[in-house]
Amino acid sequence: MKNELRKAYQAVRSKTAAICHSLEEEDYVIQSMLDVSPPKWHLAHTTWFFESFLLKPHASHYRTFDPVFHYLFNSYYHSLGKFLPREHRGLLSRPTIKTVYAYRQHVDDHLLQLLDHATESVLQTLQPLMLLGINHEQQHQELLLMDIKHNLSINPTFPTYQTNSPSVITKKTPSVLPMEFSYIEKSIAEIGNAGLSFCFDNESPPHQKILNPYVIANRLVTNGEYLEFIMDAKGYDNPRWWLSDGWDYVKKNHWQAPLYWHDIDNKWHLFTLSGLTELNLAEPVAHVSYYEADAYARWRNCRLPLEEEWEHFVSLHNIAPSSGHFMETGIYHPTLAAAMDAKLPQQFFGDAWEWTASPYLAYPGFNALDGALGEYNGKFMINQFVLRGGSCITPESHIRTTYRNFFQPDKRWQYSGIRLAANP
Amino acid sequence: MKNELRKAYQAVRSKTAAICHSLEEEDYVIQSMLDVSPPKWHLAHTTWFFESFLLKPHASHYRTFDPVFHYLFNSYYHSLGKFLPREHRGLLSRPTIKTVYAYRQHVDDHLLQLLDHATESVLQTLQPLMLLGINHEQQHQELLLMDIKHNLSINPTFPTYQTNSPSVITKKTPSVLPMEFSYIEKSIAEIGNAGLSFCFDNESPPHQKILNPYVIANRLVTNGEYLEFIMDAKGYDNPRWWLSDGWDYVKKNHWQAPLYWHDIDNKWHLFTLSGLTELNLAEPVAHVSYYEADAYARWRNCRLPLEEEWEHFVSLHNIAPSSGHFMETGIYHPTLAAAMDAKLPQQFFGDAWEWTASPYLAYPGFNALDGALGEYNGKFMINQFVLRGGSCITPESHIRTTYRNFFQPDKRWQYSGIRLAANP
Amino acid sequence: MKNELRKAYQAVRSKTAAICHSLEEEDYVIQSMLDVSPPKWHLAHTTWFFESFLLKPHASHYRTFDPVFHYLFNSYYHSLGKFLPREHRGLLSRPTIKTVYAYRQHVDDHLLQLLDHATESVLQTLQPLMLLGINHEQQHQELLLMDIKHNLSINPTFPTYQTNSPSVITKKTPSVLPMEFSYIEKSIAEIGNAGLSFCFDNESPPHQKILNPYVIANRLVTNGEYLEFIMDAKGYDNPRWWLSDGWDYVKKNHWQAPLYWHDIDNKWHLFTLSGLTELNLAEPVAHVSYYEADAYARWRNCRLPLEEEWEHFVSLHNIAPSSGHFMETGIYHPTLAAAMDAKLPQQFFGDAWEWTASPYLAYPGFNALDGALGEYNGKFMINQFVLRGGSCITPESHIRTTYRNFFQPDKRWQYSGIRLAANP
Amino acid sequence: MKNELRKAYQAVRSKTAAICHSLEEEDYVIQSMLDVSPPKWHLAHTTWFFESFLLKPHASHYRTFDPVFHYLFNSYYHSLGKFLPREHRGLLSRPTIKTVYAYRQHVDDHLLQLLDHATESVLQTLQPLMLLGINHEQQHQELLLMDIKHNLSINPTFPTYQTNSPSVITKKTPSVLPMEFSYIEKSIAEIGNAGLSFCFDNESPPHQKILNPYVIANRLVTNGEYLEFIMDAKGYDNPRWWLSDGWDYVKKNHWQAPLYWHDIDNKWHLFTLSGLTELNLAEPVAHVSYYEADAYARWRNCRLPLEEEWEHFVSLHNIAPSSGHFMETGIYHPTLAAAMDAKLPQQFFGDAWEWTASPYLAYPGFNALDGALGEYNGKFMINQFVLRGGSCITPESHIRTTYRNFFQPDKRWQYSGIRLAANP
Repeated sequence: MKNELRKAYQAVRSKTAAICHSLEEEDYVIQSMLDVSPPKWHLAHTTWFFESFLLKPHASHYRTFDPVFHYLFNSYYHSLGKFLPREHRGLLSRPTIKTVYAYRQHVDDHLLQLLDHATESVLQTLQPLMLLGINHEQQHQELLLMDIKHNLSINPTFPTYQTNSPSVITKKTPSVLPMEFSYIEKSIAEIGNAGLSFCFDNESPPHQKILNPYVIANRLVTNGEYLEFIMDAKGYDNPRWWLSDGWDYVKKNHWQAPLYWHDIDNKWHLFTLSGLTELNLAEPVAHVSYYEADAYARWRNCRLPLEEEWEHFVSLHNIAPSSGHFMETGIYHPTLAAAMDAKLPQQFFGDAWEWTASPYLAYPGFNALDGALGEYNGKFMINQFVLRGGSCITPESHIRTTYRNFFQPDKRWQYSGIRLAANP
Repeated sequence: MKNELRKAYQAVRSKTAAICHSLEEEDYVIQSMLDVSPPKWHLAHTTWFFESFLLKPHASHYRTFDPVFHYLFNSYYHSLGKFLPREHRGLLSRPTIKTVYAYRQHVDDHLLQLLDHATESVLQTLQPLMLLGINHEQQHQELLLMDIKHNLSINPTFPTYQTNSPSVITKKTPSVLPMEFSYIEKSIAEIGNAGLSFCFDNESPPHQKILNPYVIANRLVTNGEYLEFIMDAKGYDNPRWWLSDGWDYVKKNHWQAPLYWHDIDNKWHLFTLSGLTELNLAEPVAHVSYYEADAYARWRNCRLPLEEEWEHFVSLHNIAPSSGHFMETGIYHPTLAAAMDAKLPQQFFGDAWEWTASPYLAYPGFNALDGALGEYNGKFMINQFVLRGGSCITPESHIRTTYRNFFQPDKRWQYSGIRLAANP
Repeated sequence: MKNELRKAYQAVRSKTAAICHSLEEEDYVIQSMLDVSPPKWHLAHTTWFFESFLLKPHASHYRTFDPVFHYLFNSYYHSLGKFLPREHRGLLSRPTIKTVYAYRQHVDDHLLQLLDHATESVLQTLQPLMLLGINHEQQHQELLLMDIKHNLSINPTFPTYQTNSPSVITKKTPSVLPMEFSYIEKSIAEIGNAGLSFCFDNESPPHQKILNPYVIANRLVTNGEYLEFIMDAKGYDNPRWWLSDGWDYVKKNHWQAPLYWHDIDNKWHLFTLSGLTELNLAEPVAHVSYYEADAYARWRNCRLPLEEEWEHFVSLHNIAPSSGHFMETGIYHPTLAAAMDAKLPQQFFGDAWEWTASPYLAYPGFNALDGALGEYNGKFMINQFVLRGGSCITPESHIRTTYRNFFQPDKRWQYSGIRLAANP
Repeated sequence: MKNELRKAYQAVRSKTAAICHSLEEEDYVIQSMLDVSPPKWHLAHTTWFFESFLLKPHASHYRTFDPVFHYLFNSYYHSLGKFLPREHRGLLSRPTIKTVYAYRQHVDDHLLQLLDHATESVLQTLQPLMLLGINHEQQHQELLLMDIKHNLSINPTFPTYQTNSPSVITKKTPSVLPMEFSYIEKSIAEIGNAGLSFCFDNESPPHQKILNPYVIANRLVTNGEYLEFIMDAKGYDNPRWWLSDGWDYVKKNHWQAPLYWHDIDNKWHLFTLSGLTELNLAEPVAHVSYYEADAYARWRNCRLPLEEEWEHFVSLHNIAPSSGHFMETGIYHPTLAAAMDAKLPQQFFGDAWEWTASPYLAYPGFNALDGALGEYNGKFMINQFVLRGGSCITPESHIRTTYRNFFQPDKRWQYSGIRLAANP
């Protein structure tokens, strides 16, 4: 176990650094909006997590790298003390990037040392914390890519994060897999995770849900289909399809299309991590808010799936994460539903997170973790919606059938897309 | 049926006016915060509702009282055209109150005429609309009292709306009924309303829910019990018990107690519709937000009940609305749980709306009404929580077991209280 | 003197009430924007002024009408204690209008009694305070009309304050007096008021200013001339003519014309105290901000006059207030420059306040009044500009050659117009 | 002349770079508040200035370094096209610092080439533009140091910009020169600059002002003296001394002391470019707003000097800039008034800009420069106050007796201090 932990730890830590490899120093510093954190902050915060939950409580004689980092890089754990207000993260020029990397090294050294010297019983304590830290860092890997994209997107020069993204550039669009719906009859579904291997507290405990009959689509909604909502239905000019809060948000923020869409000389373009490209109509739409996903679905006489419908369907069909396109492809962009695999349900994993109609709530009998780690998930179970399945920038090893992501309904800087469902 | 409708219509219309009877003219005009509407506006808007959904479509030759009222008194129905922004409601000195009452008379006259002359088949069309209009006006009766209370509350002179409220003034506090919890085992509950008599669209369709075992309290939380959260737990100074959004809200708005509590010379007072009184520790706490209710429950190692648990328990025990204290008492203030009825579950109906842990969502298979009336409920199913049971200012005839009220989690100018539940 | 004071007091008090005579009760209550106060508040505040500066210090045994009024109706005198935040003035339904009128009567009774019983030496103390109170109330008469106009203007029904305004309705526009400029050579001007009769502290002490040669126009700029700036110069779309702050303000607030101008079906209309009328091109433009006045002047290759130029020119030509159209005409709207009097400089007094290029500053050697009254003027000598000459709603007896009015450069709900000047 | 221009150009350009020498890369990027610009932006904007006003119009065949820079680095010249909103300056990670330095080199190369090849007549055109560009860059040198200081000041680690600042560290405070006032009798002063050598347009034309008798202090107010206002007069808790706008600002922003003062364990500290130090009571107070300067003066029964009094006094006594401590000392911090020179007026130049009581206005007969350069100064003559004399971070060669600096009255991130004056 020790060896596995060591390897997993080193792998995740070096992957995080690798994500930042192509950044300019200046890219590490900025915070383009409140939701975004500077890459530098992510590098330090994930390190602070290991320091705070493993080294400080469990490594005797550990000396912290710099005491002020506890204030700077605590994200939101009130029980650990005061922390820098979120809106100040992009105002910090110090510590420098170099110092932050030194901080990472310092913690890595001590953590591996702690691991090496751990007795079996100590290891029993360390292991769940290590796994949590590793999964936490994977979450920040995805956030890093989301935040880098947004940081670059607001620059009038449209900088590129990477250049090697053939799939994005391809112009000959294959025919799109026709959208079809599977019918599932009324059933009692087993939902949630029993925790035999690592999962977050919010996936537990397992429980039953009555599911009414539903239909669910075989693939994600494409850019081309979403464009019809914009152009044909004048979707952004008509309150009819929108939740009240959503419509207010649309008007106040002058939304006219998903995030990263640009109408340049009457031609739709998309800002991607590989720069500005023409909009590929066959790709799944991404970077839509819950409000947009919900309005689109209503216009189609559909609705978004419940999270239990999604989980039930995926279990029923034994759809595995390995079927999806994840961060490991290095493409960092949603890919087309494969027409050749037309028989299989497509894109349940990877490509784009799927908004569900389910508010993010505690499962019946939910217990948050003890201590400060209880703040990890539970206190955010308010005014957010669950997304399922991971995206093109999620690490494949991070995701599973019971995994619950969550965001406020106005958020759209994640790769969030739409799968339709309906009442039969 | 015609006669019943006529009587019900006249009753609700005259009750609304009666609520305003003791107001000064100036009280009709102001809007103390964005959530509040001026009494004058309520009087006109409820009238506009009958005009727009009954007279205009169904009374041939009906001439509108004043065409600009359609802009002024449409609340939020986009499909009926543009409307006055909510924040402007308190800036209108015209139409005058006198004109608004004339508008009410005009619509009453034409509506009763329409009813009188309706054939049986026309009556089939009118009846559901009449019932909706009547129930709509009842909702605004409650809002009127809520808004009058808030409008007066911000006045440094603490004006009184009514003087005859013996129960509030009483000082000899009876002993408080001890709080006890009933245990309910795992079950499948039948939730929702089949619509045999009037109900709102959001109560349908009926459906089943799996309920895990739960316990639920026999009465509402009292002011005295809530005070312990403030004084003993320092609840408003400790993020530990709060949802993240809730804590941010508390800090930003400097909340230190429920709405209408005033610490005057180190003695807690309460602003009521009968003026400022000393806080009665035996009364149910009211005017708390979801955030406060949730934090209080967590501090007690409890949680708020799910709406299906509440509905299930009430059905199981055949608790009827008639058991509660409603608007009809004229007290307009929550009353004590009756210690003499200690065997019965108390206060499920009336006194104070009970925050549930359930976000306000569509029931499976929900269909909004057709046309503009589809905007009545459905578009608000976002970022709100369900409250159950009605309050001391709800008309008794308005409430039922399946009734779902809903507010954003920060709102607290309604009479909203706390019933505790827990996982066994 | 006693008799004169009594008469002056009674006259000003009854005039204030007369201004409100045609209001509906509801009109007394609202506050359409932060700058505006509800009419009810003006009625009470002017009364509070006499109570606070005359009755309380000088009438032994005087009992205040209601102690809380000191908090409610103190405008901004910190040295007299805390006061209601300005933005809350429109949220007060109590005291009622009836009570406010009773308050006025109470203070009137006691003040006249105080006056009647005053010995000669007491009278010496009272007289300057009486005069200040009377002039203060005259200022609020003008504010009342300004505020009533704004309060009504934001109502979609465009209510009228008065109906009898023949001059506004007249359609046959007389020929406009050609604009001509007088040349004044370099001089040393005597500026300010020696205080032999009543004046405000900000008009003193008298002092000398060197004036460079200047030219100044014989009349105010008309609506027709200002319209050229809008239509021909596209003045509201071109930053070229604007001060930096002004341009920012224009863009942020989407200004396209002076306040109260409405483009209805491509025809310019004007909201007046007599309702909505077609724009009369021959009338002086009013309700422009300093930013607009300054931009207009720059576009004309002119500038606004300095306050010392204005005062110097008026003194030089012995122009008297009696030459102007003031509140006493009852028209409450600017009138045309009389072409028949073409030889005389027009409109220096009355019609519209004239923005000067002079920031509102203390004159050399300025001393504010002692005590709380020192807050009357001095503390506002920041970020405001001087206006001269009075308007169509200024009482004629209130104005004089040395009178200095002042507003922030973005304000335009007063009757503020433009007189051009230039360097020769 | 060509040689002098070349040398002056090279000197100012290399000095700007030298100021940034000790910065970390990350320090170049951030914008700690709206008033501040990232150092990177200053480096590029000053370069853009030469490119736009010299190379583009006068260097045939000049090819711009990157066309998008015209959008990114235009500060506020509307006549040159749209520009990046000020609040976005700190959100740009690209162009990188390296690219910005390459841009500087590119423009330097072309500009020196243009200069070298200029005929005598071309040189006549270039010279005033070169001088303007050089003076413009000097202004940004001061802004750079102001902005670097503010950028570092908000960092909880209190980073130091420089370490070698002996005068700041010195603890043995020499005795402070006693404050004395010179009396100047009524006079007519010659104000302004005839433009024989370089000056800004706002210093012209020369003109006369009548000065009433005044007294003016022999040195700046010290930290110790200002501390009395805080501690003894409770200046920040008493509205009595403040302009109305100032008091509102103090309350809204919770000011309790000048900017950069920190009360740490009941001991006052000062954040400086050399880090956090104990407050030296003998040093001149700096980083106060106009509001604070004015309130302090009023508390002392004094006032701030008029700009014409300051200029008149300096002329009268032949006080030269060379008497002051400027940027060239490298100390970047105000120094003590020298007690040994007690006979001489102290600190009129250097150390800290002196707030005057004069709003920033056009001099009589002022003409802005032609074309886009007319936007340099004129459009800001609104709601600002004049400061005189330069500060410890002003280049000595940049300042002169007639020089007019200007800021809004709430600004305090410049080294702005207080000299007292009064009416005799």
